[in-house]
Amino acid sequence: MTNNLDNPAVILAKRPEGLPEPDDFRLETRSLGPRSSGQIRCQTLYLSLDPYMRSVIAGNHMGHGVDPGEVIAGEVVARVVESDDDDWPIDTVVRCQSGWQTLSDHPAEALSRVPASLSRPSLVLSILGMPGLTAWAGMVDLAKVRDGDVVVIPAAVGGVGAMAAQLCKRAGATTIAITSGEAKRRIALETLGYDYCIDRVEEDLAESLTRIAPGGVSVYFDLVGDPTLTTVAQQLSIGGRVVLCGLIKDYNGDHKTTGPHPGLWITKRATVSGLVVYDYESQRTAFEDEFVPLAESGDLVANEEMHDGLATAPDAFCELMRGRNHGKVVVKVGD
Amino acid sequence: MTNNLDNPAVILAKRPEGLPEPDDFRLETRSLGPRSSGQIRCQTLYLSLDPYMRSVIAGNHMGHGVDPGEVIAGEVVARVVESDDDDWPIDTVVRCQSGWQTLSDHPAEALSRVPASLSRPSLVLSILGMPGLTAWAGMVDLAKVRDGDVVVIPAAVGGVGAMAAQLCKRAGATTIAITSGEAKRRIALETLGYDYCIDRVEEDLAESLTRIAPGGVSVYFDLVGDPTLTTVAQQLSIGGRVVLCGLIKDYNGDHKTTGPHPGLWITKRATVSGLVVYDYESQRTAFEDEFVPLAESGDLVANEEMHDGLATAPDAFCELMRGRNHGKVVVKVGD
Repeated sequence: MTNNLDNPAVILAKRPEGLPEPDDFRLETRSLGPRSSGQIRCQTLYLSLDPYMRSVIAGNHMGHGVDPGEVIAGEVVARVVESDDDDWPIDTVVRCQSGWQTLSDHPAEALSRVPASLSRPSLVLSILGMPGLTAWAGMVDLAKVRDGDVVVIPAAVGGVGAMAAQLCKRAGATTIAITSGEAKRRIALETLGYDYCIDRVEEDLAESLTRIAPGGVSVYFDLVGDPTLTTVAQQLSIGGRVVLCGLIKDYNGDHKTTGPHPGLWITKRATVSGLVVYDYESQRTAFEDEFVPLAESGDLVANEEMHDGLATAPDAFCELMRGRNHGKVVVKVGD
Repeated sequence: MTNNLDNPAVILAKRPEGLPEPDDFRLETRSLGPRSSGQIRCQTLYLSLDPYMRSVIAGNHMGHGVDPGEVIAGEVVARVVESDDDDWPIDTVVRCQSGWQTLSDHPAEALSRVPASLSRPSLVLSILGMPGLTAWAGMVDLAKVRDGDVVVIPAAVGGVGAMAAQLCKRAGATTIAITSGEAKRRIALETLGYDYCIDRVEEDLAESLTRIAPGGVSVYFDLVGDPTLTTVAQQLSIGGRVVLCGLIKDYNGDHKTTGPHPGLWITKRATVSGLVVYDYESQRTAFEDEFVPLAESGDLVANEEMHDGLATAPDAFCELMRGRNHGKVVVKVGD
């Protein structure tokens, strides 16, 4: 078995109960056998850590999941290290679903090309990744944010929130961050350009919204569920739009979002839309055409929180689940 | 005081607790003094009885209500009996908010003209009234029902449901009624042209929907709240549209709708819209231009349940609140 390679990976040790703990994960060096013909071998450069992964490791994310003993799933940027496919030569930088491991083999159709003009490949996981595409789907396609809108964004400096805020700002909207702590407040106001920031721990959310937005909130991008969802819904202006996209609180199983009484949606003449970003994969080319230049020019700030080494992924994920991240969480695995 | 006229009226005797009972109302002959200059005196021909009135007599309908001792509010068709206004001569038939009484005075701007071509003025309260306008707003404007849709309508033979079913049918959709009892089933299938009818008492709703609409429900017009709302939401197809419009169960205070978990709206990529028909008053002319010919030609069936005499209104309303009406409830008060 001289052909086998060491393949360090992060394995789900056991299903987390409530908030995940580092010992729900296990670093393990697996052995990778010879590449099958037609497969393309990739070496991971960067892992993307995202809140939805909590439901993946609970085993119930949109009909798929990871079981104990398996490698944690997730999107990565990788570099082709072995290939017979002329379309995918060695050193091509790709996006794929390799999960939290160093090496992985994929058929060509499971790889996506990273735009050639991109100077920093990790941007593929933030501005150009699921967070950017989610923000675009929610704020541009569904809510159609426009000049004059008052938009509230919770998890405001996280991957999706950071992108959403910048898109809304570019459209001429007033943006209100919900976050916690002084460090994130500064990122929200200074790095991401939010007009206002409400500290969800130190301030009364309803009271602050009434003060900041006396005319009501016209758009709410729900990434967290209750209690924020219900509180912001009560502050909607007539005809307000709500995009439902994430339920961080519920992912950890310590909470069950109910949302506001349907009578509130009636009174507010609200439009509530459910968003699943996978539906937008087919629009990725158009999205990249628009976003690559913005990423390269610095007109969109990625606000990445970069961790170094595969072994840091479990801790970084546990911190993300506690809302302690200060940006889009990326783990650097290789060069 | 020789000028005073007897004015029989139905008064709110006390606020109902739970389902209203006939003795929550009181028939009383009030005295109507001389008409003030500029006012137009109207004699009620028909009262419209509608589910939303339950929240009016609870004192909390969209910011207004009726208190004990006051005349029950509501839309009527009336005939002008005294007027100095050349635009509103005696015998003009009008629509106005006179409530449950025989005579009432209004300024000209509170009157709406009944389309001259209309042979039966009671149609102004059904096809051309709030039920018709609500159905149009919900199914045409918000849900944009089209060929191939599978539409579920609860309270299926009531005022709004009957109109909604016919509009959806005309658009090429498959229509599924939710109702109860053999009499209403026959009205749904034979008079209103529903394709299917589910008996909410005799059948398991989820099971029947799965059988009738294995591909899922694409549009749900919620007029009733939970448990129907949550059950039908679970049967939505991807991209399903839900119009929230009424909460019959909650009106009577014996129930609190929560609606489905917001995660379900996400999974279904649903669009949920809150509808308040008052917002559509400004579109009434366009609506009437389209609907008067359909009413006159019989292409839309009014399915009125006509009661005779003001004194019958309390009983008819109590039956309506118990879902025992077989159509749009109208009370004939005068000729």
